[in-house]
Amino acid sequence: MDNAALAEAVRRGERRALARAITLVESGRADHRAAATDLLARLADPSRQALRVGLSGTPGVGKSTFIDALGLHLTAQGLKVAVLAVDPSSARSGGSILGDKTRMERLSRDPAAFIRPSPAASQLGGVARRTREAVSLCEAAGFDVVLVETVGVGQSETMVAQLVDVFVLLLAPAGGDELQGVKRGIMESADILLVNKADGDLAAEARRTAADYAGALRLLRKRPQDPDGYPLALTVSAATGAGIDIAWDAVTRLADLRRAAGILNRTRAEQARHWFAEELRAEMLTLLTRDPDLKARLARLEEDVAAGRTTPAAAAAEALRPLAATPPPGLDASPESP
Amino acid sequence: MDNAALAEAVRRGERRALARAITLVESGRADHRAAATDLLARLADPSRQALRVGLSGTPGVGKSTFIDALGLHLTAQGLKVAVLAVDPSSARSGGSILGDKTRMERLSRDPAAFIRPSPAASQLGGVARRTREAVSLCEAAGFDVVLVETVGVGQSETMVAQLVDVFVLLLAPAGGDELQGVKRGIMESADILLVNKADGDLAAEARRTAADYAGALRLLRKRPQDPDGYPLALTVSAATGAGIDIAWDAVTRLADLRRAAGILNRTRAEQARHWFAEELRAEMLTLLTRDPDLKARLARLEEDVAAGRTTPAAAAAEALRPLAATPPPGLDASPESP
Repeated sequence: MDNAALAEAVRRGERRALARAITLVESGRADHRAAATDLLARLADPSRQALRVGLSGTPGVGKSTFIDALGLHLTAQGLKVAVLAVDPSSARSGGSILGDKTRMERLSRDPAAFIRPSPAASQLGGVARRTREAVSLCEAAGFDVVLVETVGVGQSETMVAQLVDVFVLLLAPAGGDELQGVKRGIMESADILLVNKADGDLAAEARRTAADYAGALRLLRKRPQDPDGYPLALTVSAATGAGIDIAWDAVTRLADLRRAAGILNRTRAEQARHWFAEELRAEMLTLLTRDPDLKARLARLEEDVAAGRTTPAAAAAEALRPLAATPPPGLDASPESP
Repeated sequence: MDNAALAEAVRRGERRALARAITLVESGRADHRAAATDLLARLADPSRQALRVGLSGTPGVGKSTFIDALGLHLTAQGLKVAVLAVDPSSARSGGSILGDKTRMERLSRDPAAFIRPSPAASQLGGVARRTREAVSLCEAAGFDVVLVETVGVGQSETMVAQLVDVFVLLLAPAGGDELQGVKRGIMESADILLVNKADGDLAAEARRTAADYAGALRLLRKRPQDPDGYPLALTVSAATGAGIDIAWDAVTRLADLRRAAGILNRTRAEQARHWFAEELRAEMLTLLTRDPDLKARLARLEEDVAAGRTTPAAAAAEALRPLAATPPPGLDASPESP
């Protein structure tokens, strides 16, 4: 299937075509990358947009059960739901999250849902770039909601925050001073905190935890563009389904408020600029390291900088000498120049 | 004065030479940049290190008075203190912080202190790069403590956190739900919160505010490398000097704990790697935009990306076509290659 046919099949929402397209954007091979870039350009369509929701939480907090329950809640309303995972550790562990679709047993059998495990890229930056492109593909395929799941133990959530409209953090019920292994940066990114396992013996503890976090959030952070009441802390039970509807209403209400205020589109434009800068940076590094000797030189310079033997500016100038020595070939090749 | 003589004068701690060297690293001119890179390389000396302390706080919280009091507390102990400011808004406002040395009236007359206003660069990234180099120059000049001051209302504190050992946030006494205009990211970066104006009528309120923040901090963030008790919230009065000694002890104790645990040097090495990557990125962009037509093309591509008319990857590939078309000239110019 050529790219034109693949693009058409993705646009028709064919799941196998979507899976194949995502495999293409995840590939590290140079020819695949060129084909992926072409495919994405064919599918670029600002009018096809999903609600992009980030979801983070430490292992054991019940993310899979929660996504299973939330996904079914959404497909029951007639919505098409895609679930993508970002887990930089999966390259080493062989896929620690979403490697097994039985993690979301009911949702994975739902024809209105599409579940995709984390790409096995070696670098977080690479994972995030490819995940952003996978989100675009899901939107082009006509999904209404794209959930981007990440394990809240690294820097991945900061990157995920750069590709979603609303960010949800799932927490376990826990006493006031317990820290749940949540790393710095996540609290900053979360629009909505959900304390899970609000059922049975833990219900009261979950409510107490949500109240604690609500107070702390009000004290410690407030974005000027946040509507009244956000960031918000609620309780849910992924096991019984209690609170899932209220949590989803909070997500869509926030998205609606941001859309009405013009913030949603502005944020997406800013995110696109961010990813353009990231792509530029990554591709420039690729140019710089496509020669193995240059690459080794770059690594040596980095170590010299880390050890204080040279300065960042001097090392950067040294690293770029090969490119800087070659003046760009002018604009003859650029058709859009006057 | 040539660069060798200037480097010698800086190393001897001559204030006029230091001021001149900082002016050189702040300059945007290409020949100045080359000279600055050379000067910094001459002065690179891992054995000369100051304690680098970041200080942030919203306007009106009393930063100038606090730095005045803290600076005098330090010089009274025989320490040499440099104060640098990072204020990306100063380019527009004509220097809103530290533009006037009367802001720190007593400290500015102290021969053991050196005060430098914010550079008038047009971009935050540029300000941060140049400030990092100014910190290096102050270290080379033999200062024991370098305070990097930033207005806590933008993204500057995230950058400042990448160039200091300990980050202090100054807050005003305020009721529990009051938010003080502190932006996201700052709380994440702060190692020590100081509630200022703990004097007279506000003393009790300041203590209450510190207790509130201490609780919220314990709940919302904890870095695995933080020693017990940190992040810490204390009260001070810049006006009466009360608590300044305890606050400084907390700063040095944290630095000592981090040094003993090997974290200080590891963090500095990571910061140096970060700035190397930033320099590489900035210099690569300079390569890409030194031609005005290429620069205009890049701006057009960025707008196309923001509007969703093309994808970040396609736009980046397009932007880099002129550089990519030119293979690097090999390693003939690189003496250290085999």
